[in-house]
Amino acid sequence: MKLLVINAGSSSLKYQLYDMTDESVLAKGLVERIGMDSSILTHKPTGKEDVTEVSEILEHTTAIRKVLDKLVDPECGVLQSVDEIQAVGHRVVHGGEAFKGSALVTGDVKSEIRRLFDLAPLHNPPAILGITAAEKNMPNVPQVVVFDTAFHQTMEEKVYLYPIPKVLYKKHHIRRYGMHGTSHDYVSKVAAEVVERPLEELKIITCHIGNGASLTAVQGGVSVDTSMGLTPLEGLMMGTRSGDVDPAVVTFVMNKEELSISEVNSMLNKHSGLLAISGSSSDMRDITDGMEAGEPNATLAFEMYEYRLRKYIGSYAAAMNGVDVIVFTAGVGENSAVVREKVCENLTYLGVELDPELNKVRSGDPRRISTPNSKVDVLVIPTNEELVIARDTFRIVQENK
Amino acid sequence: MKLLVINAGSSSLKYQLYDMTDESVLAKGLVERIGMDSSILTHKPTGKEDVTEVSEILEHTTAIRKVLDKLVDPECGVLQSVDEIQAVGHRVVHGGEAFKGSALVTGDVKSEIRRLFDLAPLHNPPAILGITAAEKNMPNVPQVVVFDTAFHQTMEEKVYLYPIPKVLYKKHHIRRYGMHGTSHDYVSKVAAEVVERPLEELKIITCHIGNGASLTAVQGGVSVDTSMGLTPLEGLMMGTRSGDVDPAVVTFVMNKEELSISEVNSMLNKHSGLLAISGSSSDMRDITDGMEAGEPNATLAFEMYEYRLRKYIGSYAAAMNGVDVIVFTAGVGENSAVVREKVCENLTYLGVELDPELNKVRSGDPRRISTPNSKVDVLVIPTNEELVIARDTFRIVQENK
Repeated sequence: MKLLVINAGSSSLKYQLYDMTDESVLAKGLVERIGMDSSILTHKPTGKEDVTEVSEILEHTTAIRKVLDKLVDPECGVLQSVDEIQAVGHRVVHGGEAFKGSALVTGDVKSEIRRLFDLAPLHNPPAILGITAAEKNMPNVPQVVVFDTAFHQTMEEKVYLYPIPKVLYKKHHIRRYGMHGTSHDYVSKVAAEVVERPLEELKIITCHIGNGASLTAVQGGVSVDTSMGLTPLEGLMMGTRSGDVDPAVVTFVMNKEELSISEVNSMLNKHSGLLAISGSSSDMRDITDGMEAGEPNATLAFEMYEYRLRKYIGSYAAAMNGVDVIVFTAGVGENSAVVREKVCENLTYLGVELDPELNKVRSGDPRRISTPNSKVDVLVIPTNEELVIARDTFRIVQENK
Repeated sequence: MKLLVINAGSSSLKYQLYDMTDESVLAKGLVERIGMDSSILTHKPTGKEDVTEVSEILEHTTAIRKVLDKLVDPECGVLQSVDEIQAVGHRVVHGGEAFKGSALVTGDVKSEIRRLFDLAPLHNPPAILGITAAEKNMPNVPQVVVFDTAFHQTMEEKVYLYPIPKVLYKKHHIRRYGMHGTSHDYVSKVAAEVVERPLEELKIITCHIGNGASLTAVQGGVSVDTSMGLTPLEGLMMGTRSGDVDPAVVTFVMNKEELSISEVNSMLNKHSGLLAISGSSSDMRDITDGMEAGEPNATLAFEMYEYRLRKYIGSYAAAMNGVDVIVFTAGVGENSAVVREKVCENLTYLGVELDPELNKVRSGDPRRISTPNSKVDVLVIPTNEELVIARDTFRIVQENK
């Protein structure tokens, strides 16, 4: 079965075409600047030349039509006919409490995703645009939605509730949801394979640290706690997000600087984190370069980032009463040897022992970077959220045949 | 030397009279409802009958005069003359960055405490009332101020800064300050005596859990991290305070419920925590009673409280790369065996092994509750913030003679 994975943003659309017989990627690409002047389509067919095309793409339906055109193009295409696509899988950020797993798209499912606009005002609306656009272009093809939150729906009430008046949960659904679920799910499963132990027996801490960043405590294969909360703001220090602060800081700043709700949210989400402390960049590569050059603000930004990440690892070890495996993944986790080194340097109390040579190896493969004597296996596992979406889409279409 | 320790609130004033030759308490007491109808003075002289007196006490100067009257009263007094009081020590909540230790009161010191009203609007103004009132009643007696924040001034920049725009620190002094410093300081010193090891070698986690609650990582005798932040709202789940929540929850609730800044602060500080989840009480005794009676909301409140406390212990173990001693103190810490038991039950990965019998013993003395085999010493140490104030006052008056 061939299927298309779509990740729609408000002005962008990423895609990957999979052949599920061997889970190979036939083509992938990206449409940028949808609805703006000179939209850009970058198409990357496997084994052929990449194509970049600039045109007017005013909305998502046209974007998907253009993508399908490319997929069957005699020059840069990889299909004979669009009919070969037998399913479409969509990434949806927020599934609330309704979705504990992936789902076949129906009218009810779309209504429920719309009901969740409130909890994910920036993310769920474009997902609906992507679904609708795919339906218009491929009316008879089953569509599947895969949620960033679903993997975390196994958290217990004591973990997902905040210690605030309960009416706020009942009335406004305020609770911890978590994000990056497909990634935490994927890397924890690969981790069990790498250490050759049953997932059911393992206590795993998965560190998905990219521009956005979250940690998950995965016990027996299920998410028991995760650092993002009601929104992606909570938890770790990130590229431009603060992560945890005294909740009173929010109102103190609003008061002192006369900021509105949207202004303070913008400050905490877009102008904080590594960017605010370094004063120059939200990108960990720049931060570590600055640190190596002896730049004090970059060094401070790095130290805060590392310290806060390490404390979260410690707290999740306490949450599970121990840890067998620590996984690093996503942009920073996969590529920054110095982040991994500094974090692990002060986790020797857990029996963590990093192999400095293994830690420096650059590779696209899952790998162990701890010594054979380390009590905790430390792994680097490249994440693959698209593959999780493809697999879930495949499974759900099979189940609903 | 005899000295008076004063802890002034907006409508209350607690006092203890110490004889520093043996650190004995000669008398203690409390004035309540200052400025209201029928103020109450409760005076407890050591070795004599307690006295309760109802009268009109409109402000703090009169309150202290009434206290001094009682201290020299032929019936319930413990002094021949007020002149025997050679120093007064005041508890002040917020010392900002100016005060890294206790200080002799001068005009400049009072000005600085006033400048900090902004950071502690509820706590620093009554402290100034207490100081002024003591000066009026005892004009030639040296006054000393002891700060809740001072012990935490040893925290590093990477620990006390929030990952938000730096201008907010420079302009408005927004950073982590921490509270309960005299208590964390006191119990960590006693802990070193109990385990008979030099404080300088120890990694200690002190859990001051009363109605307010904070944790401190004490390494080599100094505070390296603490859970309260800019305000006492951050950190652990408390009696009526939420502790940590997604910072976005603050604005989400403001938006949904159309709350003002002061209303949402009031909700998070006064109507959250154990009270919000149990729906009935902010008092851990009621919560554990409810849990024993099988009440689901009390059980959930307890579980959230324990889980969040345990995770903080784990995070501070990671902060220090290990932990030698865990100390429980303050109302809940000293009295709730079940909180201590449940927290320690899931810290076996650190080598914690509680002795269930020792944990059940009720005593006013510092004591070990872990087994001899436990890799971490777990202690219960009754806190004594007044004694710390008395000792600091004594020391500073001696130094300034």
